[in-house]
Amino acid sequence: MPFRATILTLYPEMFPGPLGVSLAGRALERGEAIVETCQIRDFGRGRHRAVDDTPAGGGAGMVLRADVLADAIDAASYEGDTRPRLLMSPRGRPLRQDYVRELAAGEGALIVCGRFEGVDERIIEGRSLTEISIGDYVLSGGEIAAMVLLDAVIRLLPGVMGNDQSGVHESFEAPLLEHPHYTRPAEWEGRTIPEVLTSGNHGAVERWRRAEAERLTRERRPDLLAPPVRGTGASDR
Amino acid sequence: MPFRATILTLYPEMFPGPLGVSLAGRALERGEAIVETCQIRDFGRGRHRAVDDTPAGGGAGMVLRADVLADAIDAASYEGDTRPRLLMSPRGRPLRQDYVRELAAGEGALIVCGRFEGVDERIIEGRSLTEISIGDYVLSGGEIAAMVLLDAVIRLLPGVMGNDQSGVHESFEAPLLEHPHYTRPAEWEGRTIPEVLTSGNHGAVERWRRAEAERLTRERRPDLLAPPVRGTGASDR
Repeated sequence: MPFRATILTLYPEMFPGPLGVSLAGRALERGEAIVETCQIRDFGRGRHRAVDDTPAGGGAGMVLRADVLADAIDAASYEGDTRPRLLMSPRGRPLRQDYVRELAAGEGALIVCGRFEGVDERIIEGRSLTEISIGDYVLSGGEIAAMVLLDAVIRLLPGVMGNDQSGVHESFEAPLLEHPHYTRPAEWEGRTIPEVLTSGNHGAVERWRRAEAERLTRERRPDLLAPPVRGTGASDR
Repeated sequence: MPFRATILTLYPEMFPGPLGVSLAGRALERGEAIVETCQIRDFGRGRHRAVDDTPAGGGAGMVLRADVLADAIDAASYEGDTRPRLLMSPRGRPLRQDYVRELAAGEGALIVCGRFEGVDERIIEGRSLTEISIGDYVLSGGEIAAMVLLDAVIRLLPGVMGNDQSGVHESFEAPLLEHPHYTRPAEWEGRTIPEVLTSGNHGAVERWRRAEAERLTRERRPDLLAPPVRGTGASDR
Protein backbone atom coordinates (compact mmCIF):
# COMPACT_ATOMS: atom_id res chain seq x y z
CA MET A 1 0.00 0.00 0.00
CA PRO A 2 1.47 3.35 -0.97
CA PHE A 3 1.50 6.28 1.45
CA ARG A 4 -1.74 8.15 0.77
CA ALA A 5 -2.11 11.86 1.51
CA THR A 6 -5.48 13.59 1.13
CA ILE A 7 -5.27 17.38 1.16
CA LEU A 8 -8.37 19.42 2.06
CA THR A 9 -7.90 22.83 0.53
CA LEU A 10 -9.57 25.76 -1.19
CA TYR A 11 -6.71 25.70 -3.73
CA PRO A 12 -6.40 22.14 -5.06
CA GLU A 13 -4.67 23.54 -8.16
CA MET A 14 -1.59 24.15 -5.99
CA PHE A 15 -1.01 20.37 -5.85
CA PRO A 16 1.13 18.46 -6.59
CA GLY A 17 3.03 21.64 -7.59
CA PRO A 18 6.65 21.31 -6.47
CA LEU A 19 5.89 17.78 -5.20
CA GLY A 20 5.39 16.75 -8.83
CA VAL A 21 9.07 17.38 -9.63
CA SER A 22 12.38 15.69 -8.75
CA LEU A 23 12.53 13.14 -5.90
CA ALA A 24 8.90 13.49 -4.75
CA GLY A 25 7.71 13.67 -8.35
CA ARG A 26 9.35 10.35 -9.19
CA ALA A 27 7.83 8.79 -6.04
CA LEU A 28 4.37 9.96 -7.14
CA GLU A 29 4.94 8.67 -10.68
CA ARG A 30 6.06 5.27 -9.44
CA GLY A 31 3.07 5.12 -7.08
CA GLU A 32 5.17 5.00 -3.89
CA ALA A 33 3.02 7.87 -2.64
CA ILE A 34 -0.37 9.27 -3.61
CA VAL A 35 -1.22 12.96 -3.14
CA GLU A 36 -4.91 13.65 -3.77
CA THR A 37 -6.92 16.78 -3.06
CA CYS A 38 -10.43 17.52 -1.83
CA GLN A 39 -11.95 20.93 -2.60
CA ILE A 40 -13.46 22.29 0.62
CA ARG A 41 -15.69 24.63 -1.38
CA ASP A 42 -17.60 21.64 -2.77
CA PHE A 43 -19.06 21.36 0.75
CA GLY A 44 -19.87 25.07 1.09
CA ARG A 45 -23.30 26.32 2.13
CA GLY A 46 -25.90 28.03 -0.02
CA ARG A 47 -25.90 29.26 -3.57
CA HIS A 48 -22.43 30.82 -3.16
CA ARG A 49 -20.98 27.72 -1.50
CA ALA A 50 -19.86 29.78 1.51
CA VAL A 51 -17.10 28.09 3.50
CA ASP A 52 -16.41 30.84 6.02
CA ASP A 53 -18.18 33.40 8.19
CA THR A 54 -17.34 36.30 10.49
CA PRO A 55 -15.74 35.51 13.88
CA ALA A 56 -18.01 35.21 16.91
CA GLY A 57 -17.13 38.09 19.23
CA GLY A 58 -16.08 40.31 16.34
CA GLY A 59 -12.71 41.15 14.87
CA ALA A 60 -10.93 41.00 11.53
CA GLY A 61 -10.77 38.11 9.10
CA MET A 62 -13.02 35.19 8.38
CA VAL A 63 -13.25 31.79 10.05
CA LEU A 64 -13.67 28.46 8.25
CA ARG A 65 -16.94 26.84 9.33
CA ALA A 66 -16.84 23.63 11.39
CA ASP A 67 -19.84 22.09 9.63
CA VAL A 68 -18.36 22.65 6.16
CA LEU A 69 -14.98 21.24 7.17
CA ALA A 70 -16.63 18.25 8.86
CA ASP A 71 -18.52 17.37 5.68
CA ALA A 72 -15.30 17.65 3.66
CA ILE A 73 -13.32 15.52 6.15
CA ASP A 74 -16.04 12.87 6.29
CA ALA A 75 -16.25 12.70 2.49
CA ALA A 76 -12.46 12.49 2.11
CA SER A 77 -12.14 9.67 4.65
CA TYR A 78 -12.51 6.08 3.50
CA GLU A 79 -14.06 3.11 5.29
CA GLY A 80 -11.84 2.25 8.26
CA ASP A 81 -9.60 5.24 7.63
CA THR A 82 -7.18 5.39 10.57
CA ARG A 83 -4.80 7.91 9.03
CA PRO A 84 -3.83 10.82 11.29
CA ARG A 85 -5.84 13.96 10.58
CA LEU A 86 -3.59 16.98 10.57
CA LEU A 87 -4.37 20.69 10.56
CA MET A 88 -1.48 22.88 9.40
CA SER A 89 -1.46 25.73 11.92
CA PRO A 90 1.12 28.06 13.54
CA ARG A 91 -0.49 27.09 16.88
CA GLY A 92 0.37 23.45 16.37
CA ARG A 93 2.95 20.98 17.58
CA PRO A 94 6.26 21.94 15.95
CA LEU A 95 7.14 19.53 13.13
CA ARG A 96 10.35 17.63 13.83
CA GLN A 97 12.17 14.88 11.99
CA ASP A 98 11.05 12.20 14.48
CA TYR A 99 7.39 12.92 13.71
CA VAL A 100 8.19 12.96 9.98
CA ARG A 101 9.62 9.44 10.41
CA GLU A 102 6.54 8.36 12.35
CA LEU A 103 4.26 9.60 9.58
CA ALA A 104 6.40 7.94 6.89
CA ALA A 105 5.98 4.60 8.69
CA GLY A 106 2.18 4.97 8.60
CA GLU A 107 -0.42 4.58 5.87
CA GLY A 108 -0.79 8.25 5.05
CA ALA A 109 -2.41 11.41 6.35
CA LEU A 110 -5.46 13.57 5.87
CA ILE A 111 -4.30 17.18 5.91
CA VAL A 112 -6.56 20.20 6.40
CA CYS A 113 -5.14 23.46 5.02
CA GLY A 114 -6.52 26.50 6.80
CA ARG A 115 -6.92 29.91 5.20
CA PHE A 116 -8.28 33.24 6.43
CA GLU A 117 -8.12 33.94 10.16
CA GLY A 118 -8.36 30.27 11.11
CA VAL A 119 -10.81 27.42 11.55
CA ASP A 120 -13.73 27.09 13.95
CA GLU A 121 -12.19 25.57 17.09
CA ARG A 122 -14.95 22.95 17.36
CA ILE A 123 -13.73 21.08 14.26
CA ILE A 124 -10.39 20.36 15.96
CA GLU A 125 -12.01 18.39 18.77
CA GLY A 126 -15.01 17.25 16.72
CA ARG A 127 -12.85 15.48 14.13
CA SER A 128 -9.74 14.83 16.28
CA LEU A 129 -7.39 17.03 14.29
CA THR A 130 -3.73 17.25 15.34
CA GLU A 131 -2.45 20.78 14.79
CA ILE A 132 1.03 20.82 13.22
CA SER A 133 3.25 23.88 12.82
CA ILE A 134 6.21 23.90 10.44
CA GLY A 135 7.75 26.94 12.13
CA ASP A 136 7.27 30.21 14.00
CA TYR A 137 6.16 32.40 11.11
CA VAL A 138 2.83 33.17 9.44
CA LEU A 139 1.88 31.86 6.00
CA SER A 140 -1.07 32.87 3.83
CA GLY A 141 -2.48 29.35 4.19
CA GLY A 142 -1.68 25.77 5.05
CA GLU A 143 -0.95 24.57 1.53
CA ILE A 144 2.80 25.25 1.33
CA ALA A 145 3.14 23.95 4.90
CA ALA A 146 1.48 20.70 3.78
CA MET A 147 3.99 20.50 0.91
CA VAL A 148 6.85 20.86 3.38
CA LEU A 149 5.49 18.04 5.50
CA LEU A 150 4.85 15.80 2.49
CA ASP A 151 8.24 16.43 0.90
CA ALA A 152 9.91 15.50 4.21
CA VAL A 153 7.79 12.35 4.53
CA ILE A 154 7.96 11.17 0.91
CA ARG A 155 11.76 11.18 0.76
CA LEU A 156 11.78 8.70 3.68
CA LEU A 157 9.36 6.22 2.08
CA PRO A 158 10.84 2.83 1.15
CA GLY A 159 12.55 2.93 -2.24
CA VAL A 160 12.33 6.69 -2.73
CA MET A 161 15.97 7.51 -2.08
CA GLY A 162 17.03 4.19 -3.62
CA ASN A 163 20.58 3.13 -2.83
CA ASP A 164 21.49 6.64 -1.87
CA GLN A 165 22.61 6.47 1.75
CA SER A 166 22.39 10.21 2.26
CA GLY A 167 19.25 9.80 4.35
CA VAL A 168 21.19 8.02 7.06
CA HIS A 169 23.52 10.68 8.42
CA GLU A 170 22.06 14.11 8.15
CA SER A 171 20.90 17.12 10.09
CA PHE A 172 18.25 16.20 12.67
CA GLU A 173 18.55 12.48 12.17
CA ALA A 174 21.28 12.88 14.73
CA PRO A 175 20.58 15.81 17.03
CA LEU A 176 23.57 17.63 15.52
CA LEU A 177 23.79 20.05 12.62
CA GLU A 178 25.59 18.79 9.53
CA HIS A 179 29.38 19.22 9.27
CA PRO A 180 30.75 21.29 6.36
CA HIS A 181 31.06 19.69 2.92
CA TYR A 182 33.71 20.24 0.26
CA THR A 183 34.27 19.00 -3.27
CA ARG A 184 36.43 19.83 -6.30
CA PRO A 185 38.09 22.11 -7.23
CA ALA A 186 40.80 21.73 -4.54
CA GLU A 187 41.34 25.47 -4.60
CA TRP A 188 38.69 28.08 -5.42
CA GLU A 189 39.25 31.85 -5.19
CA GLY A 190 42.23 31.19 -2.92
CA ARG A 191 40.15 28.98 -0.58
CA THR A 192 41.34 25.43 -0.05
CA ILE A 193 39.78 22.23 1.29
CA PRO A 194 40.78 21.38 4.92
CA GLU A 195 43.83 19.11 4.66
CA VAL A 196 42.40 16.34 6.82
CA LEU A 197 39.71 15.66 4.19
CA THR A 198 42.30 14.88 1.51
CA SER A 199 44.61 12.94 3.88
CA GLY A 200 43.09 9.55 3.12
CA ASN A 201 42.92 8.89 6.89
CA HIS A 202 39.31 7.81 7.30
CA GLY A 203 39.41 7.84 11.09
CA ALA A 204 40.73 11.40 11.12
CA VAL A 205 38.06 12.45 8.60
CA GLU A 206 35.32 11.00 10.80
CA ARG A 207 36.70 12.69 13.93
CA TRP A 208 36.97 16.03 12.13
CA ARG A 209 33.40 15.82 10.84
CA ARG A 210 32.04 14.92 14.27
CA ALA A 211 33.96 17.76 15.92
CA GLU A 212 32.73 20.25 13.29
CA ALA A 213 29.13 19.10 13.68
CA GLU A 214 29.41 19.53 17.44
CA ARG A 215 31.03 22.95 17.08
CA LEU A 216 28.38 24.22 14.66
CA THR A 217 25.55 22.92 16.86
CA ARG A 218 27.03 24.54 19.98
CA GLU A 219 27.52 27.84 18.16
CA ARG A 220 24.26 28.05 16.25
CA ARG A 221 21.69 25.89 17.99
CA PRO A 222 22.54 25.35 21.64
CA ASP A 223 18.81 24.71 22.09
CA LEU A 224 19.27 21.35 20.34
CA LEU A 225 21.76 20.32 23.03
CA ALA A 226 19.90 21.85 26.00
CA PRO A 227 17.26 19.83 27.84
CA PRO A 228 13.87 20.69 26.29
CA VAL A 229 11.52 23.16 27.96
CA ARG A 230 8.65 20.98 29.11
CA GLY A 231 5.02 21.90 28.66
CA THR A 232 1.93 19.98 29.62
CA GLY A 233 0.03 20.27 26.36
CA ALA A 234 -0.38 18.58 23.03
CA SER A 235 3.05 19.51 21.75
CA ASP A 236 4.74 17.13 24.19
CA ARG A 237 3.25 14.00 22.79
CA MET B 1 10.28 49.19 -6.55
CA PRO B 2 8.62 45.78 -6.04
CA PHE B 3 10.18 43.16 -3.81
CA ARG B 4 12.40 41.10 -6.10
CA ALA B 5 13.30 37.49 -5.33
CA THR B 6 15.79 35.61 -7.48
CA ILE B 7 15.81 31.86 -6.89
CA LEU B 8 18.89 29.82 -7.84
CA THR B 9 17.72 26.27 -8.37
CA LEU B 10 18.11 23.11 -10.41
CA TYR B 11 14.29 23.01 -10.68
CA PRO B 12 13.10 26.40 -11.95
CA GLU B 13 9.91 24.71 -13.18
CA MET B 14 8.80 24.48 -9.54
CA PHE B 15 8.27 28.28 -9.49
CA PRO B 16 6.06 30.16 -8.99
CA GLY B 17 4.06 26.97 -8.29
CA PRO B 18 1.84 27.58 -5.24
CA LEU B 19 3.09 31.17 -5.10
CA GLY B 20 1.25 31.78 -8.38
CA VAL B 21 -2.14 31.21 -6.71
CA SER B 22 -4.29 33.11 -4.19
CA LEU B 23 -2.78 35.97 -2.15
CA ALA B 24 0.81 35.61 -3.39
CA GLY B 25 -0.41 34.97 -6.94
CA ARG B 26 -2.35 38.24 -6.97
CA ALA B 27 0.70 40.08 -5.59
CA LEU B 28 2.84 38.66 -8.42
CA GLU B 29 0.20 39.57 -11.01
CA ARG B 30 -0.06 43.12 -9.74
CA GLY B 31 3.73 43.43 -9.71
CA GLU B 32 3.98 43.98 -5.95
CA ALA B 33 6.55 41.19 -5.93
CA ILE B 34 8.71 39.56 -8.59
CA VAL B 35 9.82 35.93 -8.33
CA GLU B 36 12.39 35.02 -10.97
CA THR B 37 14.54 31.91 -11.29
CA CYS B 38 18.10 31.20 -12.37
CA GLN B 39 18.97 27.66 -13.50
CA ILE B 40 22.18 26.61 -11.73
CA ARG B 41 22.84 23.99 -14.41
CA ASP B 42 23.40 26.71 -17.00
CA PHE B 43 26.67 27.33 -15.14
CA GLY B 44 27.68 23.65 -14.94
CA ARG B 45 31.08 22.41 -16.04
CA GLY B 46 31.91 20.37 -19.14
CA ARG B 47 29.81 18.74 -21.77
CA HIS B 48 27.36 17.39 -19.19
CA ARG B 49 27.09 20.71 -17.33
CA ALA B 50 28.09 19.03 -14.06
CA VAL B 51 27.03 21.04 -11.01
CA ASP B 52 28.14 18.62 -8.30
CA ASP B 53 30.95 16.25 -7.40
CA THR B 54 31.80 13.65 -4.73
CA PRO B 55 32.51 14.89 -1.19
CA ALA B 56 36.16 15.44 -0.20
CA GLY B 57 36.99 12.88 2.48
CA GLY B 58 34.48 10.37 1.07
CA GLY B 59 30.94 9.50 2.06
CA ALA B 60 27.52 9.34 0.48
CA GLY B 61 25.80 11.94 -1.64
CA MET B 62 27.05 14.68 -3.90
CA VAL B 63 28.09 18.24 -3.11
CA LEU B 64 27.21 21.32 -5.17
CA ARG B 65 30.40 22.94 -6.48
CA ALA B 66 31.44 26.35 -5.15
CA ASP B 67 32.70 27.57 -8.53
CA VAL B 68 29.44 26.68 -10.30
CA LEU B 69 27.30 28.33 -7.61
CA ALA B 70 29.54 31.42 -7.62
CA ASP B 71 29.08 31.86 -11.37
CA ALA B 72 25.30 31.49 -10.98
CA ILE B 73 25.15 33.94 -8.07
CA ASP B 74 27.30 36.49 -9.91
CA ALA B 75 25.15 36.23 -13.04
CA ALA B 76 21.92 36.54 -11.06
CA SER B 77 23.09 39.64 -9.19
CA TYR B 78 22.56 43.05 -10.73
CA GLU B 79 24.77 46.14 -10.62
CA GLY B 80 24.75 47.43 -7.02
CA ASP B 81 22.70 44.46 -5.81
CA THR B 82 22.58 44.73 -2.01
CA ARG B 83 19.83 42.16 -1.48
CA PRO B 84 20.54 39.57 1.21
CA ARG B 85 21.82 36.29 -0.21
CA LEU B 86 20.16 33.37 1.48
CA LEU B 87 20.91 29.66 1.43
CA MET B 88 17.99 27.47 2.50
CA SER B 89 19.62 24.92 4.83
CA PRO B 90 18.63 22.90 7.92
CA ARG B 91 21.89 24.16 9.47
CA GLY B 92 20.78 27.76 9.18
CA ARG B 93 19.34 30.44 11.41
CA PRO B 94 15.76 29.44 12.26
CA LEU B 95 13.26 31.54 10.30
CA ARG B 96 11.07 33.63 12.58
CA GLN B 97 8.41 36.24 11.93
CA ASP B 98 10.72 39.13 12.92
CA TYR B 99 13.18 38.17 10.16
CA VAL B 100 10.27 37.75 7.72
CA ARG B 101 9.26 41.34 8.53
CA GLU B 102 12.86 42.53 8.07
CA LEU B 103 13.03 40.89 4.64
CA ALA B 104 9.64 42.33 3.63
CA ALA B 105 10.95 45.83 4.43
CA GLY B 106 13.92 45.31 2.09
CA GLU B 107 14.31 45.29 -1.69
CA GLY B 108 14.25 41.53 -2.14
CA ALA B 109 16.45 38.46 -1.75
CA LEU B 110 18.68 36.15 -3.74
CA ILE B 111 17.91 32.62 -2.59
CA VAL B 112 20.11 29.59 -3.25
CA CYS B 113 18.27 26.26 -3.09
CA GLY B 114 20.57 23.37 -2.20
CA ARG B 115 20.02 19.79 -3.30
CA PHE B 116 21.99 16.57 -2.77
CA GLU B 117 24.16 16.31 0.33
CA GLY B 118 24.79 20.06 0.51
CA VAL B 119 26.91 22.84 -0.96
CA ASP B 120 30.66 23.33 -0.85
CA GLU B 121 31.27 25.26 2.36
CA ARG B 122 33.50 27.80 0.64
CA ILE B 123 30.61 29.34 -1.30
CA ILE B 124 28.95 30.37 1.98
CA GLU B 125 31.89 32.57 2.98
CA GLY B 126 32.96 33.38 -0.56
CA ARG B 127 29.60 34.90 -1.49
CA SER B 128 28.41 35.92 2.01
CA LEU B 129 25.41 33.59 2.13
CA THR B 130 23.14 33.64 5.18
CA GLU B 131 21.93 30.12 5.93
CA ILE B 132 18.22 30.04 6.81
CA SER B 133 16.33 27.04 8.18
CA ILE B 134 12.55 26.86 8.10
CA GLY B 135 12.48 24.09 10.72
CA ASP B 136 14.10 21.04 12.26
CA TYR B 137 13.31 18.50 9.55
CA VAL B 138 14.97 17.43 6.31
CA LEU B 139 13.60 18.29 2.87
CA SER B 140 14.68 16.94 -0.51
CA GLY B 141 15.89 20.41 -1.47
CA GLY B 142 15.63 24.09 -0.70
CA GLU B 143 12.86 24.93 -3.18
CA ILE B 144 9.79 24.37 -0.99
CA ALA B 145 11.63 26.07 1.88
CA ALA B 146 12.15 29.10 -0.37
CA MET B 147 8.41 29.08 -1.13
CA VAL B 148 7.63 29.11 2.59
CA LEU B 149 9.90 32.10 3.12
CA LEU B 150 8.50 33.97 0.11
CA ASP B 151 4.86 33.29 0.99
CA ALA B 152 5.50 34.65 4.49
CA VAL B 153 7.26 37.73 3.11
CA ILE B 154 4.90 38.51 0.23
CA ARG B 155 1.79 38.62 2.43
CA LEU B 156 3.43 41.41 4.44
CA LEU B 157 4.31 43.63 1.45
CA PRO B 158 2.45 46.93 1.21
CA GLY B 159 -0.95 46.52 -0.41
CA VAL B 160 -0.96 42.73 -0.51
CA MET B 161 -3.44 42.17 2.32
CA GLY B 162 -5.33 45.33 1.36
CA ASN B 163 -7.67 46.64 4.02
CA ASP B 164 -7.71 43.28 5.71
CA GLN B 165 -6.40 43.86 9.22
CA SER B 166 -5.77 40.20 9.89
CA GLY B 167 -2.02 40.73 9.57
CA VAL B 168 -2.00 42.87 12.69
CA HIS B 169 -2.94 40.47 15.48
CA GLU B 170 -1.79 36.98 14.76
CA SER B 171 0.41 34.17 15.96
CA PHE B 172 4.04 35.27 16.29
CA GLU B 173 3.34 38.89 15.63
CA ALA B 174 2.73 38.89 19.34
CA PRO B 175 4.79 36.21 21.09
CA LEU B 176 1.59 34.33 21.91
CA LEU B 177 -0.26 31.60 20.05
CA GLU B 178 -3.62 32.57 18.56
CA HIS B 179 -6.74 32.27 20.69
CA PRO B 180 -9.52 29.93 19.46
CA HIS B 181 -11.90 31.14 16.76
CA TYR B 182 -15.61 30.39 16.34
CA THR B 183 -18.22 31.26 13.75
CA ARG B 184 -21.73 30.20 12.77
CA PRO B 185 -23.54 27.88 13.31
CA ALA B 186 -24.07 28.67 17.01
CA GLU B 187 -24.41 24.97 17.72
CA TRP B 188 -22.69 22.19 15.77
CA GLU B 189 -22.87 18.51 16.71
CA GLY B 190 -23.87 19.55 20.22
CA ARG B 191 -20.90 21.89 20.56
CA THR B 192 -21.64 25.53 21.30
CA ILE B 193 -19.73 28.80 21.06
CA PRO B 194 -18.36 30.09 24.42
CA GLU B 195 -21.01 32.44 25.82
CA VAL B 196 -18.69 35.37 26.33
CA LEU B 197 -18.17 35.62 22.55
CA THR B 198 -21.86 36.22 21.93
CA SER B 199 -22.35 38.50 24.96
CA GLY B 200 -21.72 41.71 23.06
CA ASN B 201 -19.33 42.77 25.84
CA HIS B 202 -16.25 43.76 23.86
CA GLY B 203 -14.02 44.17 26.90
CA ALA B 204 -14.92 40.69 28.13
CA VAL B 205 -14.28 39.26 24.65
CA GLU B 206 -10.81 40.84 24.56
CA ARG B 207 -9.96 39.57 28.05
CA TRP B 208 -11.13 36.05 27.17
CA ARG B 209 -9.09 35.99 23.97
CA ARG B 210 -5.98 37.23 25.74
CA ALA B 211 -6.38 34.65 28.53
CA GLU B 212 -6.93 31.84 26.02
CA ALA B 213 -3.86 32.88 24.00
CA GLU B 214 -1.78 32.89 27.19
CA ARG B 215 -3.15 29.52 28.28
CA LEU B 216 -2.47 27.87 24.91
CA THR B 217 1.04 29.30 24.77
CA ARG B 218 1.83 28.09 28.32
CA GLU B 219 0.47 24.64 27.55
CA ARG B 220 1.91 24.09 24.09
CA ARG B 221 4.90 26.34 23.64
CA PRO B 222 6.41 27.32 26.99
CA ASP B 223 9.63 27.85 25.02
CA LEU B 224 8.08 31.01 23.54
CA LEU B 225 7.70 32.43 27.04
CA ALA B 226 11.04 31.20 28.42
CA PRO B 227 14.17 33.33 28.00
CA PRO B 228 15.95 32.15 24.83
CA VAL B 229 18.94 29.82 25.02
CA ARG B 230 21.84 31.99 23.93
CA GLY B 231 24.50 30.86 21.49
CA THR B 232 27.48 32.69 20.12
CA GLY B 233 26.98 31.98 16.44
CA ALA B 234 25.24 33.27 13.39
CA SER B 235 21.77 32.31 14.56
CA ASP B 236 21.81 35.01 17.21
CA ARG B 237 21.96 37.91 14.83
